[in-house]
Amino acid sequence: MTRPFQDKLINIEPYTAGEQPKSADIIKLNANENPYPPSPEVQKAISGFDAGALRLYPPMDAAPLRKAIAEYYGIGQDSVFAGNGSDDVLAAAFRAFFNSDKPLLYPDITYSFYPVWCELLKIPYETVPVDEGFNVHVEDFFRENGGVVLPNPNAPTTIGLGLDAIEELVKHNRNSIVIIDEAYADFSEVSCVPLIKKYDNLVITQTFSKSRSLAGMRVACAIADPYLIGYLDAVKDSYNSYPMDAVSILAGAAAISDREYFEQVRKKIIATRERVTVQLRELGFTVPDSSANFLFASHCERPAEEIFSYLREQGIYVRFFRKPRIDNYLRITIGTDQQMDKLISALRSFLG
Amino acid sequence: MTRPFQDKLINIEPYTAGEQPKSADIIKLNANENPYPPSPEVQKAISGFDAGALRLYPPMDAAPLRKAIAEYYGIGQDSVFAGNGSDDVLAAAFRAFFNSDKPLLYPDITYSFYPVWCELLKIPYETVPVDEGFNVHVEDFFRENGGVVLPNPNAPTTIGLGLDAIEELVKHNRNSIVIIDEAYADFSEVSCVPLIKKYDNLVITQTFSKSRSLAGMRVACAIADPYLIGYLDAVKDSYNSYPMDAVSILAGAAAISDREYFEQVRKKIIATRERVTVQLRELGFTVPDSSANFLFASHCERPAEEIFSYLREQGIYVRFFRKPRIDNYLRITIGTDQQMDKLISALRSFLG
Repeated sequence: MTRPFQDKLINIEPYTAGEQPKSADIIKLNANENPYPPSPEVQKAISGFDAGALRLYPPMDAAPLRKAIAEYYGIGQDSVFAGNGSDDVLAAAFRAFFNSDKPLLYPDITYSFYPVWCELLKIPYETVPVDEGFNVHVEDFFRENGGVVLPNPNAPTTIGLGLDAIEELVKHNRNSIVIIDEAYADFSEVSCVPLIKKYDNLVITQTFSKSRSLAGMRVACAIADPYLIGYLDAVKDSYNSYPMDAVSILAGAAAISDREYFEQVRKKIIATRERVTVQLRELGFTVPDSSANFLFASHCERPAEEIFSYLREQGIYVRFFRKPRIDNYLRITIGTDQQMDKLISALRSFLG
Repeated sequence: MTRPFQDKLINIEPYTAGEQPKSADIIKLNANENPYPPSPEVQKAISGFDAGALRLYPPMDAAPLRKAIAEYYGIGQDSVFAGNGSDDVLAAAFRAFFNSDKPLLYPDITYSFYPVWCELLKIPYETVPVDEGFNVHVEDFFRENGGVVLPNPNAPTTIGLGLDAIEELVKHNRNSIVIIDEAYADFSEVSCVPLIKKYDNLVITQTFSKSRSLAGMRVACAIADPYLIGYLDAVKDSYNSYPMDAVSILAGAAAISDREYFEQVRKKIIATRERVTVQLRELGFTVPDSSANFLFASHCERPAEEIFSYLREQGIYVRFFRKPRIDNYLRITIGTDQQMDKLISALRSFLG
């Protein structure tokens, strides 16, 4: 039905996120969530929060969180921006930094929100194909452009680049802004944060949703030269001055301040990942070495969609993308050891 | 200093919010915050929150909150959208509903964020002058346009329109979307929510920051025909699928479910407002009848800026706008009775 005001409405297609099944029996390996709870310090911060303080606006700059992030990385607080989840931070960064008639460059296989923001913000873009093994070659990004965005490790492929490669990418693009999306970097051994002191055209985004188990709290940050952080603040202030609430700010600060717990969880997930990678390969899966908290797996005989449907019937949810080049792959989040044992045993039954 | 990537950066001017003084001695009447804490149910919801749940993404549609709002108003849950504060909801609505070459219309004296979003989203707009007494005349909006946005009551003028006038406005604009921004409507006796069943081109936005004392929690909603709510969801999903965290969702639901506490606080603030209005008039101020939780006041002899500076020295912060037509007015938030007594007594001293 067309309505008299139809011509005033926006023309966009909504994003489809991973399913959020409601039953507690489901083994949920489809949204790259952390199987472990956040640091006990987060519970303390929330339980002890005085609701009376909520009558006032939160700090506009989320200062306690920015301070905790700056301390964690040993950088200045003016190099840190904080926002309402990675999508909020990335969308602000796209708006702030990709204003050019030249195309934004990113890999053809990558986070599915990049083209969505480009459409929304009318940013011209070109995708750069990854090779057959899904590897990104930074030389392919050494050409005139309106900006570069690259997740490291890349998603959903799980493959990470070393610091040297990232430095080459940033160095060869001094006329544009390069965003390195480190949503999963805590599960690798590489973070580009040290490079921001050397390159004023580098922006790093990170989320607390994965490695810090705060998906439900919407906490993320960008790290860059203070000059660029100023632009992110200006964009934020032009859209919504207070994207982060008072509880999220304190919960995020509590999470990043507990280094010991973070290291424990991170290492546990990496250990499970390494074990499951070997098991999947034994079952006939091709699995790139993962630098993330998930695996990208394709079977030598059975189509990914069939495996996806079978697992679903067994109450195990993984992610399947009906998209060119990757429609024979499954994205499998690393859960607890027990959950992964159930996955492996279900796959064994299916594959006979 | 110009940097090699300067041409890629956005060109915008940041918004200036009211000051957020840090000293606890300050009487803060400059941000229209509520002087009373939120419902005790909010404290319970926060203190009892299980942080373990935060490892998962929050419900994308903030369902528990939408449900509570729908129940409060006796409308369908599919008529409710929820977001990260009024600014988030309004910005999404501007994006969803104001896509036209014809100008968006709003009063020349109104919420200062409207032109900011128009610039950001490249929406053409025209302002419609209010009369000398700051009254909005809805007939002035009976002409071709790309949309209408009107706060009711208007800010910072505090003047509200009746339901009949709003209905006329909506009825004469069936070819566009009319947004009624009810940020302060809980302090009047008028809400347009009942009109949404009759008019599919009406969108009402509300915030929990003022009447429900949740400025620090970032909670707001839009209420409209389900068809329009679908567009708001699509815009949200194209930008940030999870703008509201799990704690905000529950805190907001707790706040709106406690009707009794809400009525108490609302009535207390209205009673203080009525008393202070009389006192200010006795001191020589012109004060329009307020339908909000603040007053708009101009003195017959002393310039607003002088009074503003004097009050500031006394540790009383009010808001002064250096803007055409209103630069001899102060915007004064209604605080506790005790705070307002201190304000009146400071004004008495100043005016001799």
